[in-house]
Amino acid sequence: MGTNGKSNGSANGGSVHLPQAGLPLAGKENGNGNENDAENFPNSKKVHVEGPQGVRVPMREIALSGGEPPVRVYDTSGPQGHDIRMGLPPLRAEWIRARGEYDESDPSYKPVAGHSDPDIEMPPSRKVLRGRGNVTQMHYARKGEITPEMEFVAIRENLEPDFVRSEIARGRTIIPANINHPESEPMTIGRNFLVKINANIGNSAVSSTIEEEIEKMSWATLWGADTVMDLSTGMNIHETREWIIRNASVPIGTVPIYQALEKVGGVAEDLTWEVYHNTLIEQAEQGVDYFTVHAGVLLRYVPMTAKRMTGIVSRGGAIMAKWCLAHHTESFLYTRFDEICEIMKAYDVSFSLGDGLRPGALADANDEAQFAELETLGELTTRAWEHDIQVMIEGPGHVPMHMIKENMDKQLEICHEAPFYTLGPLTTDIAPGYDHITSGIGAAMIGWYGTAMLCYVTPKEHLGLPNKDDVKEGVITYKIAAHAADLAKGHPGVRDRDDALSKARFDFRWEDQFNLSLDPTTAVGYHDETLPADGAKVAHFCSMCGPKFCSMKITQDVRDYAAKLEMADGDALKAGLEEKAEEFKKGGSEIYVKDEA
Amino acid sequence: MGTNGKSNGSANGGSVHLPQAGLPLAGKENGNGNENDAENFPNSKKVHVEGPQGVRVPMREIALSGGEPPVRVYDTSGPQGHDIRMGLPPLRAEWIRARGEYDESDPSYKPVAGHSDPDIEMPPSRKVLRGRGNVTQMHYARKGEITPEMEFVAIRENLEPDFVRSEIARGRTIIPANINHPESEPMTIGRNFLVKINANIGNSAVSSTIEEEIEKMSWATLWGADTVMDLSTGMNIHETREWIIRNASVPIGTVPIYQALEKVGGVAEDLTWEVYHNTLIEQAEQGVDYFTVHAGVLLRYVPMTAKRMTGIVSRGGAIMAKWCLAHHTESFLYTRFDEICEIMKAYDVSFSLGDGLRPGALADANDEAQFAELETLGELTTRAWEHDIQVMIEGPGHVPMHMIKENMDKQLEICHEAPFYTLGPLTTDIAPGYDHITSGIGAAMIGWYGTAMLCYVTPKEHLGLPNKDDVKEGVITYKIAAHAADLAKGHPGVRDRDDALSKARFDFRWEDQFNLSLDPTTAVGYHDETLPADGAKVAHFCSMCGPKFCSMKITQDVRDYAAKLEMADGDALKAGLEEKAEEFKKGGSEIYVKDEA
Repeated sequence: MGTNGKSNGSANGGSVHLPQAGLPLAGKENGNGNENDAENFPNSKKVHVEGPQGVRVPMREIALSGGEPPVRVYDTSGPQGHDIRMGLPPLRAEWIRARGEYDESDPSYKPVAGHSDPDIEMPPSRKVLRGRGNVTQMHYARKGEITPEMEFVAIRENLEPDFVRSEIARGRTIIPANINHPESEPMTIGRNFLVKINANIGNSAVSSTIEEEIEKMSWATLWGADTVMDLSTGMNIHETREWIIRNASVPIGTVPIYQALEKVGGVAEDLTWEVYHNTLIEQAEQGVDYFTVHAGVLLRYVPMTAKRMTGIVSRGGAIMAKWCLAHHTESFLYTRFDEICEIMKAYDVSFSLGDGLRPGALADANDEAQFAELETLGELTTRAWEHDIQVMIEGPGHVPMHMIKENMDKQLEICHEAPFYTLGPLTTDIAPGYDHITSGIGAAMIGWYGTAMLCYVTPKEHLGLPNKDDVKEGVITYKIAAHAADLAKGHPGVRDRDDALSKARFDFRWEDQFNLSLDPTTAVGYHDETLPADGAKVAHFCSMCGPKFCSMKITQDVRDYAAKLEMADGDALKAGLEEKAEEFKKGGSEIYVKDEA
Repeated sequence: MGTNGKSNGSANGGSVHLPQAGLPLAGKENGNGNENDAENFPNSKKVHVEGPQGVRVPMREIALSGGEPPVRVYDTSGPQGHDIRMGLPPLRAEWIRARGEYDESDPSYKPVAGHSDPDIEMPPSRKVLRGRGNVTQMHYARKGEITPEMEFVAIRENLEPDFVRSEIARGRTIIPANINHPESEPMTIGRNFLVKINANIGNSAVSSTIEEEIEKMSWATLWGADTVMDLSTGMNIHETREWIIRNASVPIGTVPIYQALEKVGGVAEDLTWEVYHNTLIEQAEQGVDYFTVHAGVLLRYVPMTAKRMTGIVSRGGAIMAKWCLAHHTESFLYTRFDEICEIMKAYDVSFSLGDGLRPGALADANDEAQFAELETLGELTTRAWEHDIQVMIEGPGHVPMHMIKENMDKQLEICHEAPFYTLGPLTTDIAPGYDHITSGIGAAMIGWYGTAMLCYVTPKEHLGLPNKDDVKEGVITYKIAAHAADLAKGHPGVRDRDDALSKARFDFRWEDQFNLSLDPTTAVGYHDETLPADGAKVAHFCSMCGPKFCSMKITQDVRDYAAKLEMADGDALKAGLEEKAEEFKKGGSEIYVKDEA
């Protein structure tokens, strides 16, 4: 970034070394036309569906064999093959310029000694925008205006643009789309749309580097993350975020209080409105699309957590609780809420109202503290909507299955149907190392009940920071949960991919089965462990049952038989069976049996 | 086995080589007293709770630090450290002898040329029992008799013995306990008890050996499998099963039609009642505890599958469908059902009435064929109960979340509350390689709704045969699903382990947190990836947030504060806050913040 006075040339002078030529996982082909990731998604290509206002919506098209039509799937991977030093092309820049009045300036951030590596390489400098008036998607939606972002989302979700607009106007869905993040491909978070998933990344004081975080971000979106939260807390928070946003095709969320706390040396009591305010501006200028703000942690709620099994487990919630206790006054996030709104609407940063008092153990689920905070989040939703600011509400956490629905029902009622964005919930506490699964169960259920976005949990939850494998495992698990929820909600067309894959399975089109799966590499790898020969991939049996015991073929026999018979009636059928049985037996057609038990 | 004329000495003459000295995973200590698996379960020991009629129920006791009481957990691992050549001690032998009249004989099985390796080593020979009258647990329960098996189960589940008896008498739970499998530790499958899980093992024509299958079986029970099904279909089916049963501390289930089919060269049309009948006897003599019998696949239901996406996916279902079509007559499993009952009640083999027409794709869920078969399974339940035979009912399969509950509700009604035993269900078809997760979601839900046992699915489902890692992953995933279901059902005491683990997490007792988890090895391994130092395991922070950002400590501050205040009222609290705030601030106590966002 130009204003910090650092060169953005190619020399790697500092301790942070960026990759020389794009991310390892970025496609081997260039950014033109049909780029795709042939290694991870064989037989897929990126296609673009064109719409009004110049929108071009990316989708991944999976080619099939056997005369089957290709299957198009929602694609979060973003443009491939670009140079991360230059960042992604600013897809939305013209749309943003065309519809608003802006002040344009250099970024206001100055590097902080001791918190920024002075030799760190930064992306090319750029000007930042600030709306002279309200520039939020909700603002335009309420005026009846269909933005290109809404057009984009409508095509992406196969819905009418005006439906998207009306849902945004009503507060039931959001398009997180900071005017300073023109690189993002518009997406929406609302319960009448596909369930979305978020992946958390971020370095901490203990480990990881900028490159690792960028790589995790791109890796997460490659596998299907719809948004990414940068939860960095260590050195170079600003610089890490700049690199991430410039290379992010999905909305980026943050928890600004983390960086504010770093600025005051990690002493929560020393936090001030001014430090927080400046941090919001800094991050809004960078292009953060949504801010988690724990404005619902009120002074009077803090003692409600005293008798809990695990007290306050949200970092942001704990920071604010400490601040409230130390200053014996209400949180500035709450008292200055309207001032926060004034900032956010000038950049179109969406609220993710944080659940600072969410339960950290089953024992604390759905308790007084949690639901007290939810009431305040409902109040704040109304206040944010008065500013035409887009809002979603964060939710738990650790909740046993029978208590999940109450969370959803209360949230919808108390928060006036603002989108719910939950972490899991984890349905048991006894499986550290497998909390992607304990929470994937809860996530699928709450997604079905109406949660709009599911924050992933990786296998490392409670134990350590996720590496690339963990990020992938978390994303795939949550893609499963989100898709299972979409299926249960009966979203139109959602089952097409399931059906195509099941048909491929039945037809023994093994390659199609792999390519239609969420993770072709893993599927083919597992298959090849027992039957590695290429011939086995076209074989009409597999290693589970062997050639004599595979059941798919028998259905063909049944079908052929039923087709010949063309009789549904039981007696007629029996007559037909008697007539045809000898013939069938003589035919000696090989019968296959498949699956378990 | 003596009758096949083979030596049971130590020489490994054939192609099947058994391990020289117990399974690799069997404990390093001997079978006396406090044997446990120190490598996989640190700080745990096996304890036995004694009860009436000489029962000694194993439990695993996890020792904790910090003055916390130890936690006892349900233990399926069986006796450790034995010589697998000799098999497990016959725990139930005296109980069985004491209560019934039996015919005792050599096993009737003779090795089949071409299907049995003549040089295969076999376990020590033994006599087999056949009840002169009805010897089922249901028979005794209905007479008002509380067997030692019922006592054992009552202690294991912390319930009254007469409740166990009455549930068995009513048909709502079963204790699968063949009189020829005295090695098994009694357990029960019913919806008013803990949800159980089954692990499938078994070689196929394509791969795997006897040793591998025994090892998988012991591995599965070590991690928590409550029953194991041997679905072998290749060579040496009889011999594999003999080794498995003699070393199984959990009930073993089979699908006898698989072996019957092998006996007729894999040609379904050539199956006869005689072959099947003899196979039932053979397996009942070996000690198989439950038989999957696909007696609900009626001739008139077969054409209902013609229009399905994936037809018939159950092996057993497909075999019988083919037989019915070829012979234009009703399945002998149905027409000879009472004769099957006569066999099963003489050995106390339980029915697992198979769902041969279960859906193999979401598109086929809850369809006419599936529910037609269920009606027949309900009819057969009543017929089996007339013989005092224990029954459970198998269920799907592939079912989207919103259609799961209908399965449970219909099963309870149609099958008169006989225990339900489901495979998953898988909630989406798009994730081969992750079907333990797609199905773990459905399994947790249907367990909550009332399913008594969940048949695990491994990551290899639809792709290949599971190896040891897959077996473990499947078992742990299903332990999570079963436990989540128990929690949602509000089973008494079930949350104790969650609470102990959450408390350990809050107290930063890292070792306790690992040891209380379902898989300590994995948890500690993940932790050590980012903070390997031993010191980190007692540190009051972790790698996710680092020393400044950990939230657990703040709750202690809040607690201390609330305790001093001892005021619940809001105004009083505010007064107190004002009074104490400066003191708190001066105290400078370090605040920690934990968790994500």
